[in-house]
Amino acid sequence: MIATPDYRALLDTAIAEARQGLAEGGIPIGAALYHADGRLLGCGHNRRVQEGDPSIHGETDAFRKAGRQRGYRDTIMVTTLAPCWYCSGLVRQFNIGTVVVGESVTFGGGIGWLRENGVNVIDLNDERCIDMMRDFIAAQPELWNEDIGE
Amino acid sequence: MIATPDYRALLDTAIAEARQGLAEGGIPIGAALYHADGRLLGCGHNRRVQEGDPSIHGETDAFRKAGRQRGYRDTIMVTTLAPCWYCSGLVRQFNIGTVVVGESVTFGGGIGWLRENGVNVIDLNDERCIDMMRDFIAAQPELWNEDIGE
Repeated sequence: MIATPDYRALLDTAIAEARQGLAEGGIPIGAALYHADGRLLGCGHNRRVQEGDPSIHGETDAFRKAGRQRGYRDTIMVTTLAPCWYCSGLVRQFNIGTVVVGESVTFGGGIGWLRENGVNVIDLNDERCIDMMRDFIAAQPELWNEDIGE
Repeated sequence: MIATPDYRALLDTAIAEARQGLAEGGIPIGAALYHADGRLLGCGHNRRVQEGDPSIHGETDAFRKAGRQRGYRDTIMVTTLAPCWYCSGLVRQFNIGTVVVGESVTFGGGIGWLRENGVNVIDLNDERCIDMMRDFIAAQPELWNEDIGE
């Protein structure tokens, strides 16, 4: 266990994933699953557009890339944007202990519900993440609404 | 819109998927996403074991196989087992209007929460589904617990 995780350094991994997604023509949301000891278990990004697959959100991609794990209590899900209900459900079902979100200004997702259910949610209110999502939503509102089922 | 959907006939598709999963050495949970007009949009089954992928639950697989859709209000998610939080979150985020579950005896999942949030949940209490899960959980309790993060 690292004494005081540098959450913003962990967020950099998720931001790099989000930017890669944007460069691919996709939705710029990235995520990374870390062990609390600092090991990166998996990282990924939304690939709805790239693979025509609506099930691949940033968080589900990072979770998948980490492969089968026996327990998530000591893991940290880091994501550029507050997790939607789908990804919040993932966090709750698998008892992921900590969630670090880049921002929850452009989309609040299920972070209140996660907190009510004992998940440690850290909101970094990161300007890079806010700007990236604001620009994307303004440029492609239809695609964004599709991704959140609205 | 079919006047009175034959939910048990739709469930047969999900059961066939679950049985295929079992035959592959996997966790026997299957699902199918139907349009309310009777069209099958996608179906699939849990493939944690087969692909080493913890993100593929029956419901997420059926959702993925259906590809990108613009709206899910008039769709029916049919699953052999009550959806876990992860899959319940999927249903809520994408506003899937109806969920048909084969059973909720061996695992209750998030069906109460879905009902509270306006989802039409139909529980068929199907003996084939109950027997299949009871046998599986008795035979492989560790694998089952891994799949639900316990």
